[in-house]
Amino acid sequence: MMKINLDSLAEKYRDELLTNIIPFWENKSIDRDHGGFLTCLDREGNVYDTDKFIWLQARQVWMFAFLYNNLEKREKWLEIAGRGAHFLEKYGRDEKGNWYFSLTREGKPLTAAYNIFSDCFAAMAFAQLSKATGEKNFSSIAENTFRNILRRAGNPKGIYNKNISGTRSLKGFSLPMILCNLTLEMEHLADTEFVGEMITRCKDDVMEVFYDEASGLIRENVNDDGSFSDTFDGRLINPGHGIEAMWFIMDIAEKTGDNALAREAAKRTIDILKYGWDEKDGGIFYFLDIKNSPLQQLEWDQKLWWVHVEALVSLVKGYKHTGNQECLRWFTKVHDYTWSHFPDPEYGEWFGYLNRRGEVLLPLKGGKWKGCFHIPRGLYHVWKTLDKINLK
Amino acid sequence: MMKINLDSLAEKYRDELLTNIIPFWENKSIDRDHGGFLTCLDREGNVYDTDKFIWLQARQVWMFAFLYNNLEKREKWLEIAGRGAHFLEKYGRDEKGNWYFSLTREGKPLTAAYNIFSDCFAAMAFAQLSKATGEKNFSSIAENTFRNILRRAGNPKGIYNKNISGTRSLKGFSLPMILCNLTLEMEHLADTEFVGEMITRCKDDVMEVFYDEASGLIRENVNDDGSFSDTFDGRLINPGHGIEAMWFIMDIAEKTGDNALAREAAKRTIDILKYGWDEKDGGIFYFLDIKNSPLQQLEWDQKLWWVHVEALVSLVKGYKHTGNQECLRWFTKVHDYTWSHFPDPEYGEWFGYLNRRGEVLLPLKGGKWKGCFHIPRGLYHVWKTLDKINLK
Repeated sequence: MMKINLDSLAEKYRDELLTNIIPFWENKSIDRDHGGFLTCLDREGNVYDTDKFIWLQARQVWMFAFLYNNLEKREKWLEIAGRGAHFLEKYGRDEKGNWYFSLTREGKPLTAAYNIFSDCFAAMAFAQLSKATGEKNFSSIAENTFRNILRRAGNPKGIYNKNISGTRSLKGFSLPMILCNLTLEMEHLADTEFVGEMITRCKDDVMEVFYDEASGLIRENVNDDGSFSDTFDGRLINPGHGIEAMWFIMDIAEKTGDNALAREAAKRTIDILKYGWDEKDGGIFYFLDIKNSPLQQLEWDQKLWWVHVEALVSLVKGYKHTGNQECLRWFTKVHDYTWSHFPDPEYGEWFGYLNRRGEVLLPLKGGKWKGCFHIPRGLYHVWKTLDKINLK
Repeated sequence: MMKINLDSLAEKYRDELLTNIIPFWENKSIDRDHGGFLTCLDREGNVYDTDKFIWLQARQVWMFAFLYNNLEKREKWLEIAGRGAHFLEKYGRDEKGNWYFSLTREGKPLTAAYNIFSDCFAAMAFAQLSKATGEKNFSSIAENTFRNILRRAGNPKGIYNKNISGTRSLKGFSLPMILCNLTLEMEHLADTEFVGEMITRCKDDVMEVFYDEASGLIRENVNDDGSFSDTFDGRLINPGHGIEAMWFIMDIAEKTGDNALAREAAKRTIDILKYGWDEKDGGIFYFLDIKNSPLQQLEWDQKLWWVHVEALVSLVKGYKHTGNQECLRWFTKVHDYTWSHFPDPEYGEWFGYLNRRGEVLLPLKGGKWKGCFHIPRGLYHVWKTLDKINLK
């Protein structure tokens, strides 16, 4: 297992990105009639639903702009990102500038702006695209959206929040976690002092507030004062979230030259992974309960593509930062599971949803939540990180 | 298979009701400190969460009042129903008289009144209890709640409705379906003409509006004009819902002496069951897509207790009404699956959530959605219907 050839592995990730994943979305998802992307694609890549989800529209814009900025100045990639951005700009926001959750194929609003992650992914998309084009219009959309997110952060669901105030006030991990990443994505548009403050705040949330020292795990929800809430939400562990957040933290550590922070994030990646790994059937569970009580999530034991891809990124980055062999051992283990279960050798791209035993649960390549994002982003990061390791 | 002994089968359902299920809830779920019921019970019946969900509080009140009214005048049953009702009366409603979704153990409101089914189950509970006690207070709560439901029926989620109006207006099957049953539950409190009108309206919704003649299936959501919506929601089939609705319709048919209606409902029960049955692993799927497209429900292939219990009721009632051997064959098939998979021989009561292969997915006996309702109600109906068949 330790004889892994990191050179040929880097190639494997690059080839998968450039000859399987990206061509799939280039060929199958572009909506030439109405703009934007069709992301509900069945196993063969045929469109089975035409609704457009802001998360996925924005993430695909980000992905192609990112490839253009970081990999190669292919005009096609910029054109694809631009098509998505124009659709988003035209139809994606309500009168207050908040991003809807979903639109019809033509761009009519379907679901209101109850979900602040639509705004997060939109900000990411326009920030990345503004880097590619320098267009002032794109950077203002990113900036305004980012300001809106920070303004709404105290009550992200706004009027759609069904919790009665004053009874049980929990705060969720998702937003602080994503702000770690989004702050770095916005860096070129914000002033240094502000970025510094944001980074300190997000790092503290992710590494302290939601961290449970006793178990070494990250909680999805905690009481307002940071204490444990012995409730369905308070007991919830989402290993994929915790693991993904650790590479966001490693990126912050790299930026700020904080080696201790990188080492701590690598350690926590492994702690969460040990807890979240399914010893019986392999793979990483979707949800767990910290007290091992029955969960409300019926999908708790399923194996999801993004969880495994994010784990690969955190482990390879953890290995780069620390040289720790345990990171490499776990990387190999997750790599073996991922590559033997998710890719579809027949029709390309990867399956997204497997049952506990690793059998395909839904044969889709794209849907309401799976699009052109985690897999290509993850393949890119693993490839590039392996390259850096190999250069050492 | 056809040699089934219906006499001993009636006894089996009765014994399970009276010596397993009801004692379990009598012994494990009563909250002697704060009133109401603790419904989050693990495999052994220990409380693992103390939140109180209005659906489950009300359903348990209904269940014990129903047993008192229909089976035996046990003071203990009336006392249990009364305890739950007093908790609900004291803490369950907001200032507009709408029922919250959940409360803390002490009765503080947690989740706002976004869910009209809380109101439906509360109306059922207080109507059934008013029958037992004759208390005016209980009947007014039932009547006011029922009026509120009808007033809110056009937009059940109220301000929590996230759909942008005017883009895609779907109507859902759940409310008309439940109103079929609730109208009969409210009958003793309403005037005959009103009940007659309600029955006509609900019957038309269930048997015509949501019915897809081509497939013989019932849709979960249709366009406002009743046409098919080729969307995630429009394509959704919930076999358990459709099948359960068919015994509500048979009860209406019995009440109105409409034999043709009962026969049609029995036929449709079998049509839905044929479609919903898992030929590979047995049991009835939770969700399906009418075009066989990938679903958004990750739990689609799971086998749930209530789906199977409701199918048993519809099939045995269908057999009683029609004498159709196909009803009996399907009853036997669902009976065999149900009894060999759901009951827990070790700690009593039944498991609720199985994976596709019929293995226990969550070892709970009660939770956020499973309480003291479908199993005892179903066992009662199957037992009593078998008794009637055996008397013929």
